[in-house]
Amino acid sequence: MSAETVYTACVIVIGNEVLSGRTRDKNVQFLGTRLNEMGIRLLEARVIPDDAEVIVEAVNACRPRFDYVFTTGGIGPTHDDITAPCIARAFGRPLVRDPDAVALLELHYGREDLNEARLGMADVPEGSRLIDNPVSRAPGFQVENVFVLPGVPMIVEAMFDQLADRLAGGTPLQSCTVSAFTPEGAMAEALGAIQERHPEADLGSYPFVRNGQLGVSVVARGTDVAALEAALDEVRALMRDQGGDPVDGPRPSEG
Amino acid sequence: MSAETVYTACVIVIGNEVLSGRTRDKNVQFLGTRLNEMGIRLLEARVIPDDAEVIVEAVNACRPRFDYVFTTGGIGPTHDDITAPCIARAFGRPLVRDPDAVALLELHYGREDLNEARLGMADVPEGSRLIDNPVSRAPGFQVENVFVLPGVPMIVEAMFDQLADRLAGGTPLQSCTVSAFTPEGAMAEALGAIQERHPEADLGSYPFVRNGQLGVSVVARGTDVAALEAALDEVRALMRDQGGDPVDGPRPSEG
Repeated sequence: MSAETVYTACVIVIGNEVLSGRTRDKNVQFLGTRLNEMGIRLLEARVIPDDAEVIVEAVNACRPRFDYVFTTGGIGPTHDDITAPCIARAFGRPLVRDPDAVALLELHYGREDLNEARLGMADVPEGSRLIDNPVSRAPGFQVENVFVLPGVPMIVEAMFDQLADRLAGGTPLQSCTVSAFTPEGAMAEALGAIQERHPEADLGSYPFVRNGQLGVSVVARGTDVAALEAALDEVRALMRDQGGDPVDGPRPSEG
Repeated sequence: MSAETVYTACVIVIGNEVLSGRTRDKNVQFLGTRLNEMGIRLLEARVIPDDAEVIVEAVNACRPRFDYVFTTGGIGPTHDDITAPCIARAFGRPLVRDPDAVALLELHYGREDLNEARLGMADVPEGSRLIDNPVSRAPGFQVENVFVLPGVPMIVEAMFDQLADRLAGGTPLQSCTVSAFTPEGAMAEALGAIQERHPEADLGSYPFVRNGQLGVSVVARGTDVAALEAALDEVRALMRDQGGDPVDGPRPSEG
């Protein structure tokens, strides 16, 4: 570990539908990728049910431990959308109707279709800062270091693009990958030795099967690409020793 | 809530590659689906990094809170596979070489290819019960209520099939779904009233966009299908009131 400033984040996925298996979450991968590009390490993701006690407890457990907490899900107009009041409870703040959010919803739905349920999407913890929703208008919001986003991936992605100037990032984590059709078990010991010689590169080993053939991708992660490449040069030589033909990236040509 | 015995579970996904966005986890959806079918509620999933302190802490935080804990990832032959020693630490047990696991690995690799790194996959916390791996032989293991599985989805699925007789289940959670091209905001208030009249059906509302048209799926979850259908009958009537043409399942025909 270097002395660089490291920013950290956590994602809390609020969703019975993910825990029941109905839906396969997509937002963790998106947020993990984008945060890492900004130099913010996603260090935990948690999927929890639509249960007020559990939501309040998770938010309060995570917000002091990470620089940024992102929640996804539960901010629509229906009875099962309970995230906003839970965030208010977690911070001990009242839930208030935000006039800017009301104006956005009026513009989107028109006055006659803006019923009480839809107006509820303008209720946020006092002192929240809205996050614009260019897709369907109902905004997300930020309270201190907690960013409250919806569950629909397309809207999460559109909202996240608004946040660049609210998130302080550090040195981006880079990754370089080399792959070959060699079994990881044959090179495991030598790979461990390479890891010891290159502590500035965090080496991950990921086996795969492609076209019936066993292979491995070795991913080097760290902030200094030259250091990553130096470690991967040794990995490439090791793969060749094992009869493999290393290629850059996760997809070797067919063996 | 009824007086039925409810069994609960938690999944701990151990994987830098999921947090960095390199990989989109698939195991939570599989385990959530299969556990629910067995009458075991998946109540939490947590993605954590390949960090020994974090793994030990997460396992010890979760194993008293849930009937079953499943970990995925980190049990291969390379230096970044640290799950087994972490589980041993979490339980305060020594890591021992399991003779049955050694025999399986010898059979699979042959004596000459069974190097020390591969032999390490036979090291499990003392008193573990192995979980057979029909795909690539290196076994998973169970310590008390913690089931340690690999990260590769195909192997997770094959291993899980071995566990039916080790997991006590309760009444399976059933779900019924009805969908229509009606906006959820228009029926949110009435849907909340249906939820109040049918507490035995847990109603979730999930908006979608298909062929450029806004729609909603309402999922009723609970243990009594007749009760779920009674609630959904009211939802169907509500959708018709809104001009929708409700169909069973998550995919309405094109509108």
